[in-house]
Amino acid sequence: MRIIDETVLEDLALGAAVLGTGGGGDPYIGKLMARQAIRDYGPVELYTLDELADDDLVVPTAMMGAPTVMVEKMPNGDDIVNAFLSVGKYIGKPVKATMSIEAGGLNSVVPIYCAARLRVPMVDCDGMGRAFPELQMVTHTIHGISSTPFAMSDERGNTVLMETISNLWTETFARSVTVNMGAMAMIALYAATAAQLREAAIPGTITLAEEIGKVVRRARLEEDEPVETIREAVGGYLIFKGKIGDVERRTEAGFAKGDAFIDGLDEYAGQKLQLSFQNEHLAARIDGEFKVTVPDLLAVLDVDTGEPITTEALRYGFRVAIIAIPCAEKWRSPKGLEIVGPGYFGYETEYVPVEARYSQRRKRML
Amino acid sequence: MRIIDETVLEDLALGAAVLGTGGGGDPYIGKLMARQAIRDYGPVELYTLDELADDDLVVPTAMMGAPTVMVEKMPNGDDIVNAFLSVGKYIGKPVKATMSIEAGGLNSVVPIYCAARLRVPMVDCDGMGRAFPELQMVTHTIHGISSTPFAMSDERGNTVLMETISNLWTETFARSVTVNMGAMAMIALYAATAAQLREAAIPGTITLAEEIGKVVRRARLEEDEPVETIREAVGGYLIFKGKIGDVERRTEAGFAKGDAFIDGLDEYAGQKLQLSFQNEHLAARIDGEFKVTVPDLLAVLDVDTGEPITTEALRYGFRVAIIAIPCAEKWRSPKGLEIVGPGYFGYETEYVPVEARYSQRRKRML
Repeated sequence: MRIIDETVLEDLALGAAVLGTGGGGDPYIGKLMARQAIRDYGPVELYTLDELADDDLVVPTAMMGAPTVMVEKMPNGDDIVNAFLSVGKYIGKPVKATMSIEAGGLNSVVPIYCAARLRVPMVDCDGMGRAFPELQMVTHTIHGISSTPFAMSDERGNTVLMETISNLWTETFARSVTVNMGAMAMIALYAATAAQLREAAIPGTITLAEEIGKVVRRARLEEDEPVETIREAVGGYLIFKGKIGDVERRTEAGFAKGDAFIDGLDEYAGQKLQLSFQNEHLAARIDGEFKVTVPDLLAVLDVDTGEPITTEALRYGFRVAIIAIPCAEKWRSPKGLEIVGPGYFGYETEYVPVEARYSQRRKRML
Repeated sequence: MRIIDETVLEDLALGAAVLGTGGGGDPYIGKLMARQAIRDYGPVELYTLDELADDDLVVPTAMMGAPTVMVEKMPNGDDIVNAFLSVGKYIGKPVKATMSIEAGGLNSVVPIYCAARLRVPMVDCDGMGRAFPELQMVTHTIHGISSTPFAMSDERGNTVLMETISNLWTETFARSVTVNMGAMAMIALYAATAAQLREAAIPGTITLAEEIGKVVRRARLEEDEPVETIREAVGGYLIFKGKIGDVERRTEAGFAKGDAFIDGLDEYAGQKLQLSFQNEHLAARIDGEFKVTVPDLLAVLDVDTGEPITTEALRYGFRVAIIAIPCAEKWRSPKGLEIVGPGYFGYETEYVPVEARYSQRRKRML
């Protein structure tokens, strides 16, 4: 067990934004909320999965909806607490802890807020090892863990609970209600025991995010090359540098969808990268050819500061570096690719692990 | 207490279809389901509100969605039972009985199906005295009774539960989920004690429907004028006779909406009636002028048989008589008209009780 205090929080939020591949909610708002909760209620205990008893029940908490909306409409905190408590009450058993369902700006820190306010511990793991736009897209689904009892709450005091026959049905119903709630809702779902999570979850994500954040912070202080430092810390590949040209956006069925078109700079001059997103960055095409796709990660970083840029912050003129990061191994199974592979999102291409495409090239460049 | 057996059911379904003002679901399918349940599980006990103890808990059951869809997609029965049991389980107290939330083809008999299968009694009352398209449109809302805990279930085994801050929010969320469930769902809602219902509900609706049905059946056997017989039985006014010309329909946000244009026959020759509907018949304009609007009832009857015609059955060429019936007194209060008056549905006209417009004329005609 270790403690998440304000300092840890800063690093964690920064690192989680890298893993969040542009999604998982605005990291700034999430950080503010969690920091205030830590100030008001004290720091949070972070347990590893091994430190829990087999039948300890863990209920993840998260934000659902379009991050573009969250910039203007903040959660009020009671909504998070309501969703978490509703699942516990429905199950009728004590809930030991909460956890992140995804690594990403807001969704790495929402559970910290919940944990601080209710004085329950948090577990060092998540269900994606990154962020994904739909709620069935977690390693829990690969392992047959149900998303229900599922609870979603808004800032007005409304709560909707579900018992569904599949995690895709939960996504379908919850997405509609999210739109009704103002394109954003706070959710609690995927209740599971520590024993189940040792099989199904991706361990150590919070610590990994914190470490990435720490490295970036130091690189900035020392004016070291932050992009290269991040690339090394995450074990990724630099695939592009360029200036954002056009950004096409649409808020569709509660998602922030769109494409950014990036004109190459330096050694990438003359090339054009098309970055497709749905809450998260999902695929990168260079000159029309798919180079990196889900489930591998795409981090879009400010070329000077290394600051991760969320999908809703993409703007004309930003100079960015794009890093591709290998996804968690679980996603590369046939079942994993069925849930989050390029085909699910409608991209007509086979999944090729990023290492297969870039490790050779990287060696040449070094 | 009295018994609802197959014979009662026939009359009840017919009479409820008159009160259903074209909505409340297809009466034929509802009757088939309830009849089978009575055959399989035995007849149903019908209690008056006065026969219940003050704190006996009653949970209404109903179908929600577009009746146009139900013609092709039948409920499977487990969905009704799941919704009813989910509310009881959530409340954690024994539920004494079920009841109709609205008078209407299917929704008068859905509770009979539920009561037969689960061997619980049914109560002789409803929340509308007619049918209305949205779920906050019940006399319970006038009396401050919450629609939640609300449960909705589909035939696949999915259940969605809600705790909301207003009945309008329940309607909003539930309408979206209904669309996801295939434009139709089975629901349980408005849990209330017998003491509350003695204030809030409209008593005797089941018996009234049965009596209307009985009268119509006899009129048909005796080849008496069924339309006039129905008009007398319901205390209504004949406002039009004509042949249906154009019918414009759209399924919108889970509702069956539209307008039928009816060309006058006999003494109405040369006049044109526009009948507007949203699951139920809501307003009648003659030659462009509003004559009858919600909350008063509009029954569209086959001119020869007196058979009530549902909104989804309106077709070119049908010869119909249109009867206007005064609504329950509760709806004529300012709070009632706010919930179900013409303004709520976007009709730019004041509500004028049907008696005020037609009683004089009727006297002249007699």
